[in-house]
Amino acid sequence: MKQREFYQARVERILEAALPIKTPHYLSEAMRYSVLGGGKRIRAILVYATGEALKIKPELLDSPAAAIEMLHAYSLVHDDLPCMDDDDLRRGKPTTHIAYDEATAVLAGDALQTAAFETLSSVNSEICAENQLKILNILATASGVNGMVKGQAIDLAAVGKLISENELETMHLNKTGALIKASVLMASYCTNDTESEKTDAQRVKLTEYAESIGLAFQVQDDILDIQSDTETLGKQQGADIAAGKPTYPSIMGMDAAKQKLFNLHQKAIDSLSEFGEEANLLREIANFIVKRIA
Amino acid sequence: MKQREFYQARVERILEAALPIKTPHYLSEAMRYSVLGGGKRIRAILVYATGEALKIKPELLDSPAAAIEMLHAYSLVHDDLPCMDDDDLRRGKPTTHIAYDEATAVLAGDALQTAAFETLSSVNSEICAENQLKILNILATASGVNGMVKGQAIDLAAVGKLISENELETMHLNKTGALIKASVLMASYCTNDTESEKTDAQRVKLTEYAESIGLAFQVQDDILDIQSDTETLGKQQGADIAAGKPTYPSIMGMDAAKQKLFNLHQKAIDSLSEFGEEANLLREIANFIVKRIA
Repeated sequence: MKQREFYQARVERILEAALPIKTPHYLSEAMRYSVLGGGKRIRAILVYATGEALKIKPELLDSPAAAIEMLHAYSLVHDDLPCMDDDDLRRGKPTTHIAYDEATAVLAGDALQTAAFETLSSVNSEICAENQLKILNILATASGVNGMVKGQAIDLAAVGKLISENELETMHLNKTGALIKASVLMASYCTNDTESEKTDAQRVKLTEYAESIGLAFQVQDDILDIQSDTETLGKQQGADIAAGKPTYPSIMGMDAAKQKLFNLHQKAIDSLSEFGEEANLLREIANFIVKRIA
Repeated sequence: MKQREFYQARVERILEAALPIKTPHYLSEAMRYSVLGGGKRIRAILVYATGEALKIKPELLDSPAAAIEMLHAYSLVHDDLPCMDDDDLRRGKPTTHIAYDEATAVLAGDALQTAAFETLSSVNSEICAENQLKILNILATASGVNGMVKGQAIDLAAVGKLISENELETMHLNKTGALIKASVLMASYCTNDTESEKTDAQRVKLTEYAESIGLAFQVQDDILDIQSDTETLGKQQGADIAAGKPTYPSIMGMDAAKQKLFNLHQKAIDSLSEFGEEANLLREIANFIVKRIA
């Protein structure tokens, strides 16, 4: 089994254990439905891959890997709501508000966000409290009004409007980029050391890497929205265009979008030049992101 | 000015500063609309009052006081949504989804929850990282699937059903009680000491106090829903009854509900017997909760 699939299965087990069925059952079932059994787990795999690059053992990375997937899942559940993107299909299954109902989807999303912070704030004897707090602050900053939610708010306001490539970039740097960057940065703090010049320098490079693949991911998403099909995607093909959402191909043309994807991939690979083979999984993720078909 | 109003004004200033207007404006404006300029601030005042009882200076309590009010505000915004309680009026003003729209209300609520954890995870030189992490964990545990959201989920499932007094109690202990208890417990960790037997013993008593006033608050809420009027309440009078929600008076009768309120108040006061006049504000809050008219 490939390393990527190995970590994908690992975070699935961690999430499964972190979200047991509890009273009232329908709530925890909806939470599990929203987060388990699907998804590429790119963010969690990035946490583990960064751990490999920095020689941090996987046991120390399980909490941030699970937390970032919970956070991401909550954002999808709320994003799919009728008052937001109104999507019926996600990861090849009915969205949470379709499988349950709207109220349950709102609550399950809310509780998944909380669960992410609960996971990160649980006592961990192998990561010092200063770093745990830092990890938590990275996730909170990346996912709130200065990060992911900001991107979603720009997205909602942009529907049906003409926006520039720069504005589109700001939206994506926040909407998806912030969490991808957070995955890499959180992993870098999963140690007992509070200060390290070497790690600080590595963080700069890892941040460059994360920003490049974050945007690349989105450019490829926009390309797939046009060139793939619903069955392969596991969500409605053409949904963004139909919703009047600005995309890279719609703003800059398909050829230019593909060139941009190529450049971002190159930049991601270049930013890892000072790492040896311990960063191979990070390189593989960059390759996967531009070559994926769904 | 009474001490209670002093702290009410204090947390208002902290919240105001913690939530500046940012791009996109409509999102941060909706967040400010949802949390500023209203509310009794019972939870924040409890944080400061517990600080007084434990001789902790207010500066150390500002973050948890603001965080608990952000968390509470997010829960109200989502609770008022059409798919949840569908309320148009809150604190005498149109609810967030009425003043803005549903999508904005979902996002503003989401971002307010995140902001609570962002606030608590910011570096604070006067509270050790171990305690900051503990404070964060208290809030996360109290507000998620084992606390507030659990209570909301029980509440939603109970509409139009006959439930026992015990089930009603479980719902309220989670829905409102968990955050009230968290206010008191968070305050007790706003120090640089990680271990103290004296504080542990005080925490037991403070927890008893918080559980009693948390339930008392809810019993009084149910009584006011029947005996007050919309203008005084700042929200629709009779809304719970109209929505088919179980309440203390509807389950046990008005006289028994009032007796219960009296007993809970007595229990709260008794649990503070080992504290001197430094706990007077906690006593005043207990009195306020049973005597309030809105």
